Amino acid sequence: MRPATHSSADTNRRKPSKGEVTRRNILKAAEASFAELGYDAARLETIAEEVGIKQAAIFYYFPSKRRLFDELERDIHDSLVSVTETRLADVDDPWERLMILVETWLDFMVARPTAARIILRNCATPAGEDQPAEAYSADALQLLRGIIADGIAAGRFADVNAMYLVNLLSGSILHYVCNPEQLGSERPYRPEDPTEIAVFKTVLRKTARAVLDVR
Amino acid sequence: MRPATHSSADTNRRKPSKGEVTRRNILKAAEASFAELGYDAARLETIAEEVGIKQAAIFYYFPSKRRLFDELERDIHDSLVSVTETRLADVDDPWERLMILVETWLDFMVARPTAARIILRNCATPAGEDQPAEAYSADALQLLRGIIADGIAAGRFADVNAMYLVNLLSGSILHYVCNPEQLGSERPYRPEDPTEIAVFKTVLRKTARAVLDVR
Repeated sequence: MRPATHSSADTNRRKPSKGEVTRRNILKAAEASFAELGYDAARLETIAEEVGIKQAAIFYYFPSKRRLFDELERDIHDSLVSVTETRLADVDDPWERLMILVETWLDFMVARPTAARIILRNCATPAGEDQPAEAYSADALQLLRGIIADGIAAGRFADVNAMYLVNLLSGSILHYVCNPEQLGSERPYRPEDPTEIAVFKTVLRKTARAVLDVR
Repeated sequence: MRPATHSSADTNRRKPSKGEVTRRNILKAAEASFAELGYDAARLETIAEEVGIKQAAIFYYFPSKRRLFDELERDIHDSLVSVTETRLADVDDPWERLMILVETWLDFMVARPTAARIILRNCATPAGEDQPAEAYSADALQLLRGIIADGIAAGRFADVNAMYLVNLLSGSILHYVCNPEQLGSERPYRPEDPTEIAVFKTVLRKTARAVLDVR
């Protein structure tokens, strides 16, 4: 019964405020910097320059470099969970759910290689008190763990520690995206090449089947 | 015909000089620091303190932080190649060679998790002009590539891009060692637990077989 306010809220949702646009631009520039240089070498000065604001203005949106990085991590994992849940919405079969999750994660990382680099770098960093390993990835990993637990409970999957699947599947997805030149110039590939993606999806499918098959 | 010199060289091989001991100690302390903090955050001052020398003394052995890191990388990969070649020495069958290589790499990384963290962090870093992705890992990767090429040539392996195996096998080995708590406290594991290692080796074997099987 407050049509004016309602309509204004709708308008806000369609056209984000200037502040929200700046906040998104800071996150975007920060993602590129953190991915390329790592947390310690990335500089707020460069990020501010990229956005076209003064360095001090960053602190209006993010009180510290650490908080900026945390918000970015949250943003990456929220997006990943959101797109995965959407694609899983009407699927019940555990195998099909697992395959959809794996393919969604691959598609996501191929489309956002900066996110893949940031996550891979986190994997290399020992978990500390201020940086629990599971903090922002918890929801995404819970999705995978839930599917595996359901499959085991239904007698469809062998009873393996979900960790092995995480190491195999998400580990190799991150490496696929970040390391196309790891073997030198002899057999390089473009991670975003649809043919390569299709072949690699087959490899991931075979891998999951080999590990989880009950036979 | 220079028995004195010869004997002195033999003695040197048995008992390394003080300089060589210091050099090894610097590499060891550097490996711990680079693994825990990453290249940029690691400090030569801390490494020198750990060894019990002045920071300036490091430069007598390594002219720069970058060179110290490079030498460390070379040392890690040389050790990995050396132990792998030893274990492969009398084995001809491509499957057996592949399995021995994979298990050797897992054992190596479990015994030297600092090396695993350093390599994983490198994987996350985009290859630049001063830091070619293949520099020090080339020989190790060439071993794996050679085994796969031999297996394909002999009709024993399906003709897949060796990159997929690198991403799957070495990627998941690095994650196995670096991320035991990735799924939180529900199903953690100790990477050095012999039972876990045995199960994970089975998983790796199944994975390789699923991807390379010619059927």
